[in-house]
Amino acid sequence: MAEMAIDYVDVQLARSRIRRYLGDPTPILRWRAFEERAGLPGLKVYVKCENLGPTGSFKIRGALNAVLALPDHLARKGVATHSSGNHGAALAYAARIRDIPAVIVVPVGASPRKIDLIRQWGGRIVECEPTQEGRETALSRVVLEQGCVAIPPYDDAPVIAGQGTVMDEFLDEVPALDYLLVPIGGGGLISGSAIVARARCPQVRLIGVEPRGANDTLRSLARGVRTPHPAPATIADGLKAFVGALTFPIIQQMVDQVVDVTDEEIARMVLLGLEELRMVIEPSSATVFAALASLSLESACTVGVILSGGNVDRAFWERLGVPSGPGK
Amino acid sequence: MAEMAIDYVDVQLARSRIRRYLGDPTPILRWRAFEERAGLPGLKVYVKCENLGPTGSFKIRGALNAVLALPDHLARKGVATHSSGNHGAALAYAARIRDIPAVIVVPVGASPRKIDLIRQWGGRIVECEPTQEGRETALSRVVLEQGCVAIPPYDDAPVIAGQGTVMDEFLDEVPALDYLLVPIGGGGLISGSAIVARARCPQVRLIGVEPRGANDTLRSLARGVRTPHPAPATIADGLKAFVGALTFPIIQQMVDQVVDVTDEEIARMVLLGLEELRMVIEPSSATVFAALASLSLESACTVGVILSGGNVDRAFWERLGVPSGPGK
Repeated sequence: MAEMAIDYVDVQLARSRIRRYLGDPTPILRWRAFEERAGLPGLKVYVKCENLGPTGSFKIRGALNAVLALPDHLARKGVATHSSGNHGAALAYAARIRDIPAVIVVPVGASPRKIDLIRQWGGRIVECEPTQEGRETALSRVVLEQGCVAIPPYDDAPVIAGQGTVMDEFLDEVPALDYLLVPIGGGGLISGSAIVARARCPQVRLIGVEPRGANDTLRSLARGVRTPHPAPATIADGLKAFVGALTFPIIQQMVDQVVDVTDEEIARMVLLGLEELRMVIEPSSATVFAALASLSLESACTVGVILSGGNVDRAFWERLGVPSGPGK
Repeated sequence: MAEMAIDYVDVQLARSRIRRYLGDPTPILRWRAFEERAGLPGLKVYVKCENLGPTGSFKIRGALNAVLALPDHLARKGVATHSSGNHGAALAYAARIRDIPAVIVVPVGASPRKIDLIRQWGGRIVECEPTQEGRETALSRVVLEQGCVAIPPYDDAPVIAGQGTVMDEFLDEVPALDYLLVPIGGGGLISGSAIVARARCPQVRLIGVEPRGANDTLRSLARGVRTPHPAPATIADGLKAFVGALTFPIIQQMVDQVVDVTDEEIARMVLLGLEELRMVIEPSSATVFAALASLSLESACTVGVILSGGNVDRAFWERLGVPSGPGK
């Protein structure tokens, strides 16, 4: 087995580092309406609610671990990243906890809601062209000018270790999972989860889920080498990222199965989540709920689902045919 | 002080009776975005999430306490109520736990979502005319024919005691609240909360909230006698009920202040809840969030809010200008 970017001990260390800033573990709820519909005696479905964490997604864990792990002389000048999503807000939040500046490079046209979140936690925004090259050029400039540290969104050992703390908390409360479903974007969350699962609950069947319109991990697994999707397009905007050089080998060796789901299935699950779980499940996170709905389960099995985030832009409701109301 | 329908000891008894069926206490979350906006150093806002309980509202507590408190010879023939809302689903759920039948009298034209919820937990539905008289006539017929026990939605000592368990759990985790905001429909939740608050946390300022279109409690307090609203009309459909004979004296003597809010403020808070709390707050529950937004708070104070429920019909999204998406 090739060497992994992190071990379980790195997750434990991350957990002790970030615990006092995150407060209580995020809630774990039973999805009773699903169990009822499935009609399988003894089936239990547990949902780990990262949408209810302080920034509305699991991303705070990796960002906070990376920021707190920096030695003082590096931290002092601040941190930076490029992000149009949850990692940017999470990094701003983490930097604020350490009382250092954060610069978030945001592509022109990014969602106003995500920009609000970054500003809310005191992040400074630098706009860039909405291309991968534009993002990287702008970030390099910020890092060089300010002498600050770039914190990548997923392909980074401290970030992966931080994301693994979700699963570590999950297993504290539900120690014997038979299945675990986790979304895959860049692969940070599933890599961290896999490291923990294999150490603490080796029998769990670990299932990664991608949107069909950005299924680069499935393509990569089929070819045995990282292979980008030619033109990622999906409502699960948080999962368009390309699986990482550190995360891909972990997925290859530790994840049992990767499946993909359509945008229509994802949208349906966002609405079902509002009704049955009374929570906002962002499209990137609704992927796993869609996969769960088509999984063949047995009686008396225990399923874990990571609800990775709940930051939905009002524009998304509009795309679903749902113009925003008077709250605008 | 006039005699109250229940004492704190009744709530403690209710809590020990229902605990094993409800599982863990419902989660309590910080509303950090609100604190941030308010800009008051040391302000803390805690939200007790009854929407995340097994039937999506606090109503399960009172229904379950009332059902479990029945002696066997009465329970055997089942329970009944009339309800177009959360109490009906809660009673069906409670009856199922005790393995007895439940009949829910539902007015013609009630929301399909609420009917689904009642059916989901095995309740039998009997339709009636959508008037108070039609409901009561139909319920009387069911009770006489089946010999079952009617469980009222709020004006009933075991129901009030059950609803009080929300506040008892809340104070276990956040022992020193300065303010507590609770919605008022028939007054079951606020009466139970008040009994607990006065016993455990007497300094808390207890604020009840009504929709302006159904502000019968405010009218009743002004006149010193229970006074119905002439024509209740509000999007907070769970709060149209008329304050009860048992609950009104508790509110009169134990609640510091009752305020009302408009439907527009309520609708705005439903959307803000989706964005900032990543949860569904039903309109009846959004009332207290609207009241919180216009309250004058001080630095270093601790505010508790009871998020009473999250069952929103798709028709409500439509009324907000939000037609349902592909999940229909």
